[in-house]
Amino acid sequence: MQAYRSLATTFSRLGALDDAGGILSWDTQTLMPDGASDTRGEQLATLSVLSHELLTAPSTADRLSEAEADVSALGEWERANLREMRRVHTHASAVPGDLVEASSKASTKSEMVWREARRNADFASLKPHLAEVLRLQRLVGEAKGAVLGLSPYDALLDGYDPGMRRARIDSLFAELRATLPGLVQQAQARQTSQPPAVPLPGPFPIESQKALGLSLMRAAGFDFSRGRLDVSLHPFCGGATDDVRITTRYDEDDATRAVMGVMHETGHALYEQGRPSAWRHQPVGHARGMSLHESQSLLIEMQACRTREFSEFLAPRLRDAFQGQGAEWNAENVHRLYTRVEPGFIRVDADECTYPAHILLRYELETAMIAGDLAVADLPGAFNDGMKRLLGLDVPNDRLGCLQDIHWPGGSFGYFPTYTLGAMGAAQLFKAACSALPGIRPALAQGDFSELRGWLRDNVHSNGSLLQTDELLVAATGKPLGAEDFLAHLDRRYVADAAVA
Amino acid sequence: MQAYRSLATTFSRLGALDDAGGILSWDTQTLMPDGASDTRGEQLATLSVLSHELLTAPSTADRLSEAEADVSALGEWERANLREMRRVHTHASAVPGDLVEASSKASTKSEMVWREARRNADFASLKPHLAEVLRLQRLVGEAKGAVLGLSPYDALLDGYDPGMRRARIDSLFAELRATLPGLVQQAQARQTSQPPAVPLPGPFPIESQKALGLSLMRAAGFDFSRGRLDVSLHPFCGGATDDVRITTRYDEDDATRAVMGVMHETGHALYEQGRPSAWRHQPVGHARGMSLHESQSLLIEMQACRTREFSEFLAPRLRDAFQGQGAEWNAENVHRLYTRVEPGFIRVDADECTYPAHILLRYELETAMIAGDLAVADLPGAFNDGMKRLLGLDVPNDRLGCLQDIHWPGGSFGYFPTYTLGAMGAAQLFKAACSALPGIRPALAQGDFSELRGWLRDNVHSNGSLLQTDELLVAATGKPLGAEDFLAHLDRRYVADAAVA
Repeated sequence: MQAYRSLATTFSRLGALDDAGGILSWDTQTLMPDGASDTRGEQLATLSVLSHELLTAPSTADRLSEAEADVSALGEWERANLREMRRVHTHASAVPGDLVEASSKASTKSEMVWREARRNADFASLKPHLAEVLRLQRLVGEAKGAVLGLSPYDALLDGYDPGMRRARIDSLFAELRATLPGLVQQAQARQTSQPPAVPLPGPFPIESQKALGLSLMRAAGFDFSRGRLDVSLHPFCGGATDDVRITTRYDEDDATRAVMGVMHETGHALYEQGRPSAWRHQPVGHARGMSLHESQSLLIEMQACRTREFSEFLAPRLRDAFQGQGAEWNAENVHRLYTRVEPGFIRVDADECTYPAHILLRYELETAMIAGDLAVADLPGAFNDGMKRLLGLDVPNDRLGCLQDIHWPGGSFGYFPTYTLGAMGAAQLFKAACSALPGIRPALAQGDFSELRGWLRDNVHSNGSLLQTDELLVAATGKPLGAEDFLAHLDRRYVADAAVA
Repeated sequence: MQAYRSLATTFSRLGALDDAGGILSWDTQTLMPDGASDTRGEQLATLSVLSHELLTAPSTADRLSEAEADVSALGEWERANLREMRRVHTHASAVPGDLVEASSKASTKSEMVWREARRNADFASLKPHLAEVLRLQRLVGEAKGAVLGLSPYDALLDGYDPGMRRARIDSLFAELRATLPGLVQQAQARQTSQPPAVPLPGPFPIESQKALGLSLMRAAGFDFSRGRLDVSLHPFCGGATDDVRITTRYDEDDATRAVMGVMHETGHALYEQGRPSAWRHQPVGHARGMSLHESQSLLIEMQACRTREFSEFLAPRLRDAFQGQGAEWNAENVHRLYTRVEPGFIRVDADECTYPAHILLRYELETAMIAGDLAVADLPGAFNDGMKRLLGLDVPNDRLGCLQDIHWPGGSFGYFPTYTLGAMGAAQLFKAACSALPGIRPALAQGDFSELRGWLRDNVHSNGSLLQTDELLVAATGKPLGAEDFLAHLDRRYVADAAVA
């Protein structure tokens, strides 16, 4: 117990450092004056270096071995906590310090170049930086893979979604690849046969959008004594334990996007606010990976808030907030606006039927890049070929193509699949929740999320990292992660019965 | 050089940790949701512990001795930097870790109790906590004093104002004690013979107050690419290097206070923004103590912005901001409002003539408490006796008496004198600046601070901690810190020629 307790103290300190970094990163994206970016970079780098030093100190490894030799003294949560400590330690200590630093610097530089390159649709300027980031990420993947006994890509993936492997994704994504193109065609045909979705007429004053968003967060159960809503260029859920900060951006010409953006981040936030408080600064108290995290945001946004039921609650509130008058403010049209299907160039703007195609493409390309089968120079061509093949679109320039996302320039290889794995998890969990508690869907028409939130808290949020993702899904839904509930959901909402889904 | 360079790396890390803590503390007082106070406390405590560990590691002491043995290799700034490293190290390592922790915990607890005690004017509930804080601060003072060869009070004082000693303050304050009571009487008599200061009629919308404050900050030269203005209950200047964040509070019934509050904090901010950028994360790049810091805020607020000249610039802007109409919006009345003299109970509301009396009293009481000559139980009586003696006021309750300030409950003994030492420094520096550059005062009537700011940057801000406070004052004004320019300023503004001062 001595070694375990001492580790718990160290990890509690690491958790506090992580939380401090979370608030500083939030501040960087919301409030920080431009001229402070260097000093902020130094602050964050110092916190990272101190964390890495704490984590990879020889004494940490010694205490881990000692605690593992004495595991019988530990309870269920403590045992899972020790397992997670080991996981965090393995990932951190697998990579030599100079590679961590080189990789972090290259990604920071490349991200900066990318912002300008995207603006100018200028892939050539990014190319050498992206090539360097890729080279270093391959080394990171190899270093982690050597210790974890995994391929480089699987090793990177494991950092975002513990336990997830490429073989599993290949098989799950094969189902999507087989079904989705036909489904999108059917959905669009169906859509054509229905009344068109009429855009709501603006303008939409930002203060009114904000007030509406806050009231919807409150309805969903966001705890404002332990969190905030603010504005940033790229919406996110961040902050710290007991201080969960979500952001959105407002468009005065379109209120519908900020509303769903806020609900998406609220889904993430409910997960964070529902983590087990007794384990708040320990690894077992953290959320279980990015796929499950994305399942929570998509469950709230896509599964719950784009239902016909929630449109009934939302439509009159939209009308009130913006003094709407015409028939386009009714629930039917609001629902149609929120369930339009239309292939487009930009991933973050995609509807839930075409979104997976964006991910299939990125997954295909990033696995090839990490395997050494696709050179950075060939990325734009391969990207555009894929967009033609998967969505039938001719990409006019790289700004609308391979330059649109920050992930690769930022060094995040292995992250993209978690979006679509999350969409699958969301469908699976929402179906199970609604089976267990049939009142959930009708309550959404009243803006009442309490039953849904209670089920999620019990079955997902309060688990922290006690169960692995598939263990959790088996316990909550009776089966491991699969594609079938997601595909059935899409078929029901967009093809079988578009009027009531 | 090897040891010095290695120390510079360590102190650069300490500077970044300090900056991270600065932003987190700012956030705590401006935006943090209530329920996050525990987790924020853990973050700040972790940063402090890590800093203290870095600073007091045996290797730091070894490198300091090594670098000091090789001082001939260092240039002027490096030598001063090494001197400051030693100073910081001595203060930190003088106090045993468990005393640091006990003292920090006692102060945090006592501060919390104080908030409630002040609200209820209930000294009894604070008494045991304040007694414990005092007991521990006396131990801290003794521990530091033993290493520094100073009395406990001088050792505490040295933490806020390096090099300042009680004997020096006693002699400076004796001049004030001899002169001020008569000066206040004369100022009040003079005031009675003049037209009364007519309060500006409100209400004063907060957005307009904010816009006015921002425009005045801009006029004074605040660099918004490296700083912000926000709102907090207690105004302060905080944040980090290249990210200076000042706050104010707005009263819809009185705009005059927020305006001067903003200019006060802007004075602090100009100092922070003007520190030498080549030494940004090194001890020698830091501001030189709290007395000099307060001199900068009071120079801007009291010396520059309460002049007749600045009133000419400000009055029409106040009138425009709040659509003022009557004669009370003219420069004469605005100036009278900003130079009223009236003894009152609350230190932070005091005018510049009666403010020193509040400090004389607190200095007298805290030196007695640290010396063991005044028990906490006897504090309220001694405080009230002093208010009667120094300002002729009968304190009706402890909320308006010894409970009004956070300093003692928060463990800050030795801080109070820096306010009045700062007022002296402000008068001395402003006089020297105006002698060197006679255009400074006339320019204030145009809202033009550029000459004044340039002089302050050259003579104060860019010095960092290269020169000690008195060395800096001798270089800038020809003499060490004294009371005469301050007293002459008060006499000129409030007695000799109240119409033009």
